[in-house]
This record gives sequence, C-alpha cells and structure tokens, in this order.
Amino acid sequence: MNVLFASTGEKPEFWVPLLQKLLPAERFFAWPDNNSGDIDVAIVATHPRGALAGLPRLKLIQSLWMGVDNIVADPDLPRGVPVARLIDPGMVAAMGETVIAHVLDWHRHFWCYRGFQAQKLWKRRRQYLASDRGVGILGLGELGGGIALKVRAMGFNVAGWSRRPKQLPGVFCSTDLDEVLSRSDAVACLLPLTPHTRGILNKDRLQRIRKDGCLINVARGGHVVIPDLLALLDSGHLAHAYLDAFEPEPLPADSPLWAHPGLTITPHIAALTEPRTSAGKLAENIECIRRGEMPPNTVDFAAGY
Amino acid sequence: MNVLFASTGEKPEFWVPLLQKLLPAERFFAWPDNNSGDIDVAIVATHPRGALAGLPRLKLIQSLWMGVDNIVADPDLPRGVPVARLIDPGMVAAMGETVIAHVLDWHRHFWCYRGFQAQKLWKRRRQYLASDRGVGILGLGELGGGIALKVRAMGFNVAGWSRRPKQLPGVFCSTDLDEVLSRSDAVACLLPLTPHTRGILNKDRLQRIRKDGCLINVARGGHVVIPDLLALLDSGHLAHAYLDAFEPEPLPADSPLWAHPGLTITPHIAALTEPRTSAGKLAENIECIRRGEMPPNTVDFAAGY
Repeated sequence: MNVLFASTGEKPEFWVPLLQKLLPAERFFAWPDNNSGDIDVAIVATHPRGALAGLPRLKLIQSLWMGVDNIVADPDLPRGVPVARLIDPGMVAAMGETVIAHVLDWHRHFWCYRGFQAQKLWKRRRQYLASDRGVGILGLGELGGGIALKVRAMGFNVAGWSRRPKQLPGVFCSTDLDEVLSRSDAVACLLPLTPHTRGILNKDRLQRIRKDGCLINVARGGHVVIPDLLALLDSGHLAHAYLDAFEPEPLPADSPLWAHPGLTITPHIAALTEPRTSAGKLAENIECIRRGEMPPNTVDFAAGY
Repeated sequence: MNVLFASTGEKPEFWVPLLQKLLPAERFFAWPDNNSGDIDVAIVATHPRGALAGLPRLKLIQSLWMGVDNIVADPDLPRGVPVARLIDPGMVAAMGETVIAHVLDWHRHFWCYRGFQAQKLWKRRRQYLASDRGVGILGLGELGGGIALKVRAMGFNVAGWSRRPKQLPGVFCSTDLDEVLSRSDAVACLLPLTPHTRGILNKDRLQRIRKDGCLINVARGGHVVIPDLLALLDSGHLAHAYLDAFEPEPLPADSPLWAHPGLTITPHIAALTEPRTSAGKLAENIECIRRGEMPPNTVDFAAGY
C-alpha cells in the first residue's frame, strides 16, 4: 500500500523512517509528493490545506493526535473515508502527568509561592488535605477516565462529566455538567472540541466552580470563553488557571494572556504524541486496512469526535 | 497527667483545645506556664530555649514534627527522657504530594515554560517518558519509603538510598549513595539531619546526578552545601533545584537565593503537620505513657534521629 505523511505539526523525516521499519512492505510518501494521488492511507496531524483532496483510492485518514477537530472541520475532507484517532499510551501517560502536576500546583499553592518568591516573602498558606478538595474531570474517555482514577488514587474527591453515562470506581460520574462543576475546586477540561463543546466554559459554567478553585484546560482553546475566565480570575472567584491550548496557536506575542498573573501558559505541550509508544499503534491500524478491516477509534461524525 | 505545650512553630490556642477534647482526663498547660515544673509530657515543635529544663517528672518529649534535629541539638535536653517523632498520615501524604509535584514540574519542563511565558515565547521542549528518567530518593523511612513507591507507580525508575539496607518492590535500593545519585536525574532529599548527613549534598555528590537533572530538598537546609549547588546550576549541570528548607529560617530577605533563576523556593511548607490526622496519634502516645509503656517512633540518640 501507499502511505502519505501530510502534517504541519509533526516532522516526516522523523516519523517516516520509524514507520518504514515497522511496515517494510508499504511505500511511504511525504507531502507534497502524493504519488500522483495513488494513496491508500494518509497520516495527518494538522494536514496542509488540500492535502487530502484528489486521493481517489484513500481508505483511511489516520491522525497522529487524539483530537481530530482540525480534520473534521476540513471542508475538503473526502466523504466516506474513515478517520482514526490515535490512542497513544505515551500520550495518555503524559496527559495524566500534566493534569496531576497542575492539580498539585494549585492544591499546594505552589503558583502562589512563586509570587511570594518574586517578592522575597517568607509566608505560608494554609495546607489542605487532598480529601478536602474536589477535582472535576470533564470528559471520561480514554484520557479523562484514566486520569479521574489517578487523581482519585491521590485522595482527592473526583467528579467526572461525560455526555453519555459512565461508571468509574470511587468517582462521582454525572451527565449534569453544573452538578460536576459545583462539586469541584479544580476542573480539568479533556473534552473533544465539537459544536456542542465550543465555548462550554463560559461565565455561567465557570462561576459554579467553588471559590479559590482553578481551571486546567488541556483540551482546545475553543472550549474556554477567555474574557469570562479573566473576569472570574480578576474578581478572585478563581485562584488560578492553567491554559495549554489557544485560538489561534501559537498564542500571539502581543496577547495580554502571557502577562496575566492568574495564568500559567504552556505552548500546547500537555501531551505530545510519543513516537516510541505510538508507531506500533499506527502500524497496527495500517495493517487493519491491508486486511480490509476497520481500525479501532474511528471518528463518529455525528458526535464530531 | 500534666501536658506542657511548648512550641514556637505551632500555636497552642489551636492545638490545646483539640487535644483536650481527645484527652479529657489530662491537664494542659501552654508555655511559659509550666505548672511549676510538674509536667509529665512536653509537646514541642521548636521549643523555646530552656522550656524543657526544670521538669523533674518529665516522661516524654513528643515532637509535633517528624524532624527532631532541633530537639536533639538542645544542650539543655533532660537526660534519659525519650523523644517521640510524630508520624502523621496527613503530613506523610503532603510530603508525597510535594515531591511528586516537583518531580513532575522538572520532568515536564514546567519550570522552563514559566521562563518562556515571562518572555512571551511559544517554544516547546522535548517530552520524555517517565521510564526515560531516574528519580533518586534519599532516605527510605516512613516518608521516603512510601514516596519511592508512589514515584515508581508513576512509571519512573526509582533508586533509593538508606543507611541500613532496605527492600522495596520495584525500587533499586542501595546503601551506596554515589551509586544512587549516578542512576538519578531528579534527587529528592528526605533525610534526617544528623552529624552524618550535614553537608551531604556537596559538589562531589551533586555532580554525580545526571546532567540536566534537579535537586529537591524537602528535608533540612543543613543537608545542602549551597555554594556547591549554585555552582552546578550556574554551570548548567543541574537544570533546576527546589528548596524548601534553609539555614537560617526564615530565609533572609537579602539572600541572593530568592532571585536565582535556577531555584524554586518555598517557605518550609513541603509537609505541615495536619491537626486532624495527627491529634489522634499524639493522644495515643500520651495514653502509652499513662499506661507506663513506650510509644513508637522514639529517637535513637546514637543515630541522631
């Protein structure tokens, strides 16, 4: 089969040799070389505009990322071709590390002690037990479900929100977003970006988080209504927010967000795809297509993820 | 029995009512009222100089903290009176949170991204897997042993050092400090401060930590030779250090450490005694003395902790 690597977010010179080694029978092409349109599988991570057009034999679009909102939003997306998300164990682990790091940074006031350090101020904040705190996890899929259990294992009270009812041991699971937010001091957003979730973290939602709480957005910039978040930080209702995703990206150098004292900003690094743990998953999916089978984790276009 | 609360580090108006409720038969006194020297148990956390002298009936000195170096170093310490450390589950959990927070802050480059944010710079660092990293835990007692297992459960390679041989599942345990350091990218110091451990983290030891690693000192200021640490940060051998304890404390406002870009400084808050989880342990120890028994976790004066 012929495999096209078409990504502006990941480097072909890095991935193609790795995949070629795992799949010696396949032929790999790096966009803009699309083998005159004779392509069976396209591997993408923010594909160049038009890269998926004119590929009549295409059988699979394989994302290198878990979020597929960029692919689904492409008006030139070939109809009827399945899109597979990548469930990369290394990326899942990395996301868990990021959420736990931010939950602890807020819970133990490290964000606040950095401000004290800048003022050369030796001053203590009250220490809470993890069991004093509620942590809300928005999205209980491959990422959120596992993270909810990890945060629970650290002794926090965990509430999880998902569109469809879920059950997780020791976690209060609900399909009522307001109820989950009102039980939470810290809220981590791990949702897919769809028309239903765009702007979901607006003023009305954010003010249901308990006072002195924090927001951790490791999903997409479009989930958060930034002026509403800033208003709740400036009023003191929220203590801090950790933002990893923005619209647009990169966050422009003249954005006022960079210098806001209530924000910790990271350049969309909450969880990067890890080639060592994901190349094998990609190879499995491509082998599925060779056998005429459908790989797991394909996008439900009605749901948008 | 008569119980004296003598502490400059913890507030009697907070602790005494809590303990009085748990031990209604005992009489409590707050220093400087020492009931004319008629005291059976002294509860201390950095006791005022001389507070332990002139108490002829004293049967137990109970620390509110795990570290007892301040007590052991008191030249006026009454001879033959046992000193009990406090093993507080809330404090043990808090210490685990702090070490994990700092390990993740270093592992996932959050310390570095804060510098990028200050420069309004959208720039990524390479992401590593936890299994790429070695974490060294110095001290495998009640604190270090449990923390080594928690860090291991997150996927890191963990090496632990203790004076006496220990065994922990999945942890490389050794009594050879240099071997533990040379297997470590991040090193967390949880040692008691004794004449054997004072200055233990000097240039020769610190340079055995792998390049781009970090030091996390949540024990005592006296463990680290600060000029040696600064030299290794300035040379780029160590990426960052997290310091929670200093000599003297509070860290003076004119200390150059506050503004060093390679240091995260916290005001000795890595793990505070939690009254809700520790008052019961204190009450148990006082009841041991009432029964004429020795409470657990008394200090071995030969070892110094």
